[in-house]
Amino acid sequence: MTDLAKASSSLFLRSIRGESCERPPVWIMRQAGRYLAEYNAVKAKHSFLEICRTPELAVEVSLQPIRFLDVDAAIIFSDILIPATALGIQVDFAPGPVVLNPIRSAADIQALKVEDVTQKTKFVAQAISSLRTELDKLPGAPKALVGFAGAPWTMASYLIEQKPFKHFERTQILAREHPQALHLLLDQLTTITEEYLLSQVEAGADAVQLFDTWAGLLSLEDYQQFALPYTQRIFATMKRRGVPTLLYINGCSSLLPAMIQSGASVLSIDWRVSLSEACERIPIEIGIQGNLDPTALYGTSEEVRTQTKQMLTAAQGRARYIANLGHGILQTTPRENALTFVKTVQDGWP
Amino acid sequence: MTDLAKASSSLFLRSIRGESCERPPVWIMRQAGRYLAEYNAVKAKHSFLEICRTPELAVEVSLQPIRFLDVDAAIIFSDILIPATALGIQVDFAPGPVVLNPIRSAADIQALKVEDVTQKTKFVAQAISSLRTELDKLPGAPKALVGFAGAPWTMASYLIEQKPFKHFERTQILAREHPQALHLLLDQLTTITEEYLLSQVEAGADAVQLFDTWAGLLSLEDYQQFALPYTQRIFATMKRRGVPTLLYINGCSSLLPAMIQSGASVLSIDWRVSLSEACERIPIEIGIQGNLDPTALYGTSEEVRTQTKQMLTAAQGRARYIANLGHGILQTTPRENALTFVKTVQDGWP
Repeated sequence: MTDLAKASSSLFLRSIRGESCERPPVWIMRQAGRYLAEYNAVKAKHSFLEICRTPELAVEVSLQPIRFLDVDAAIIFSDILIPATALGIQVDFAPGPVVLNPIRSAADIQALKVEDVTQKTKFVAQAISSLRTELDKLPGAPKALVGFAGAPWTMASYLIEQKPFKHFERTQILAREHPQALHLLLDQLTTITEEYLLSQVEAGADAVQLFDTWAGLLSLEDYQQFALPYTQRIFATMKRRGVPTLLYINGCSSLLPAMIQSGASVLSIDWRVSLSEACERIPIEIGIQGNLDPTALYGTSEEVRTQTKQMLTAAQGRARYIANLGHGILQTTPRENALTFVKTVQDGWP
Repeated sequence: MTDLAKASSSLFLRSIRGESCERPPVWIMRQAGRYLAEYNAVKAKHSFLEICRTPELAVEVSLQPIRFLDVDAAIIFSDILIPATALGIQVDFAPGPVVLNPIRSAADIQALKVEDVTQKTKFVAQAISSLRTELDKLPGAPKALVGFAGAPWTMASYLIEQKPFKHFERTQILAREHPQALHLLLDQLTTITEEYLLSQVEAGADAVQLFDTWAGLLSLEDYQQFALPYTQRIFATMKRRGVPTLLYINGCSSLLPAMIQSGASVLSIDWRVSLSEACERIPIEIGIQGNLDPTALYGTSEEVRTQTKQMLTAAQGRARYIANLGHGILQTTPRENALTFVKTVQDGWP
């Protein structure tokens, strides 16, 4: 089997295509991270940004959860603010993302220029290329490789707010006070994101996930005005290249009607959406990913098994279903519970 | 007209009772606050806690938005963490709430004792009593007086997390690891809240609102297990005393089915719930309050008027409808826009 044929036969991609699968594919958002001692060992020697910017390190930490959990998909270790450097934005992690030169006015936005996206993010493409090689060397069932980016609204929220606050009000206020300027920023972020994701696909990503983590703070009308059109543009570009796409929004229950219109191959939902209701509301041609509450991994292993099975039961044997959490795994999660979650899915439909 | 008859004929209470009203009543959550220069003048001389603990100051700042906005209801100026002192919890504001001795373990919860709720919060009852007198002296249509408390889940979240984080994961983790201990804490908070709210009613509050601000982070199942039973107990106690109740949850769209079961007279919804959909889903015997996005008050006055009218149109002339924002007013809100919001409602149904 060629490498391409091997990747394309991964359970993850087969599920997205709606092919009949023996069980749902499973992976965990933020699966490379601080709940793993082996990640902390790398982190003790290198800063977060160093790991992101050094392909060997990014590949190593991306492979750790594959080795430990044997999940069906790897996701490249990186951060959604990395491509913002192509707008001249300086980002630090302390440990959460901090923007050193946040956007404060319409004039700040006018002054931005998109420059050398592929060049400025080339370490990500390099890491993906190496990760692809490493994944293909692994024995056993083929693993999918997921690339990712932040959706324009969420990217804008970080650039405007400097660091994540409780609510991202400043961005919504800018939307009221200077809607044209915000649209210009979102447009530029869309351009960057398209080029950035295509470079990831060129390097070997099988699918791309767009994280619109903070869009759940928007009303449906505001989402339709300030987030959906940009997400649609990115997904249309990916679709023309035949790249499967996933859309994640935290707190998305009121936004499902718009998410269905986004053009995403798969909608990744959080734990506050009823999975069985989502299965009814989302057309069968669109996949669903999720949605166990990350705090459910703090119970006994028996409780983790029970809750995981309840999730699978709610997914009703849907062909296009990918098991995952409803948000990133929390850093203090007991690692054995993460393993129990994955193994319970791998045991097949209840 | 006696004072009691005067208050009971307020537009706010008539609307809750479902009586035909010439227009919807209107007030604004957090209407006494930093967007008002007159509030900042008081705040320059006194700390937040001093204002809460000194009846004359609490009454003064509670009256400021009545004078400026002429809203139909006053809410006593206070903080949801005030009654936690009856559990021996020490709270400071810097400026957000900070718990000095946060709950860290099941043993911490076992050690708590409910003591002297009415005594320890008597300055709140005193303020309500004076505010009642002041409101009744005002010329014009009678004003309702709203008392309030934090719902047990949200109170517990603050006590466990020390200060408000992005997500209140610790409380949910405690729910998984030590559910019995958390239930004990929630039970004690319920007892405190009942006594605290009754003392407010005795002092002259016409209705009470329970703020379960953080319950929107819970799945429907977790809400039903850890929040709903306690909220129901409080509302049942209020109902036996004939006190109208309002329930506010931020990000409540997935929780509506449970909120309907809470026993609240009025459900206060946020801007991410479609108001027209809420009008269809919530039985007509239950009132609806809300739900303009607080950031909508940053547009031009024309936009504020348009958005307020759209909200009123969505409320479909419902008898039991109270106009409000979907969350507390933001501290940088242009005060003229707050006034435009109120005046647009006072102009009547569009």
